[in-house]
Amino acid sequence: MEYKVIFHIDELNKWSLVLKNASNLLEAIGNNKSYIEVVANSEAVKTYNSFNKETDLNLVNFFNELNNKGIKFVACNNALKTFNLRQEDLIDFVYIVPAGVLELVKKQMEGYAYIKP
Amino acid sequence: MEYKVIFHIDELNKWSLVLKNASNLLEAIGNNKSYIEVVANSEAVKTYNSFNKETDLNLVNFFNELNNKGIKFVACNNALKTFNLRQEDLIDFVYIVPAGVLELVKKQMEGYAYIKP
Amino acid sequence: MEYKVIFHIDELNKWSLVLKNASNLLEAIGNNKSYIEVVANSEAVKTYNSFNKETDLNLVNFFNELNNKGIKFVACNNALKTFNLRQEDLIDFVYIVPAGVLELVKKQMEGYAYIKP
Repeated sequence: MEYKVIFHIDELNKWSLVLKNASNLLEAIGNNKSYIEVVANSEAVKTYNSFNKETDLNLVNFFNELNNKGIKFVACNNALKTFNLRQEDLIDFVYIVPAGVLELVKKQMEGYAYIKP
Repeated sequence: MEYKVIFHIDELNKWSLVLKNASNLLEAIGNNKSYIEVVANSEAVKTYNSFNKETDLNLVNFFNELNNKGIKFVACNNALKTFNLRQEDLIDFVYIVPAGVLELVKKQMEGYAYIKP
Repeated sequence: MEYKVIFHIDELNKWSLVLKNASNLLEAIGNNKSYIEVVANSEAVKTYNSFNKETDLNLVNFFNELNNKGIKFVACNNALKTFNLRQEDLIDFVYIVPAGVLELVKKQMEGYAYIKP
């Protein structure tokens, strides 16, 4: 079995919930192959800012742990521009796409399930 | 015509909205065949607790009505464990799945439409 | 390439975010063909009321701009009835469907991607 999933987050206060969902999914999937991507747009991209002192350290550790387990973290460049964030400001494993919303559409067209915690 | 739909709920205060959506859907579907499932994870599972005195009685009646009309109610076991809830604490027609998030993925893979009210 | 997308909105305060998402999507899609629909149910339909003085004029202009670019705006009739709104009260390019939730299901069955900002 192979699982393809995108999580969508656009609110700052949903990060814990999204990461918990992604973590539970990974555990439930076990040894099956999976492609899991977290797409952040709107204000949610601010949490990717590695210089943001307000970001909870537990959250940063959780990001690292899930990235190590193969989850891909994606930021919307429209949102980054809104908040004056550049590639070099972000946690280093974050991918940037021109438009988060188009990424969400493309992935669904490729058969990814969509989940909005 | 045959309709397959999963509703996703993870916030306590969305129950009325979700049940209203499910009820409207049933009415609009009419005599067509349908498979409708409500998947609750995170704090939303607390409303399934049949011993929870804070749960609005109208909501409990609404659960029963929709269950009688064929809607399946599902609880995420990860969330149940978080809130120390066991099978015997829940409204008796609630199904438990190991991970709500995997249920949401599997159903979409089976062609279910996803709706997050 | 052809893109088919439905945006779902059921909260009043999400309109700016939804329209921004739709606008970013249009720009990212460029000259590719697209079918983009915004489906409003629950309280979100109130913003379609053209006599609502509380509605931000910027939002109204944004509606017009996106409608001119081909985005279809849809209202759930169940929600309209709840708020005593009739066709003649609405911005004139808004389509009414009997049940917003069924529209969301049907479109996904036709291959539309679902996005809930």
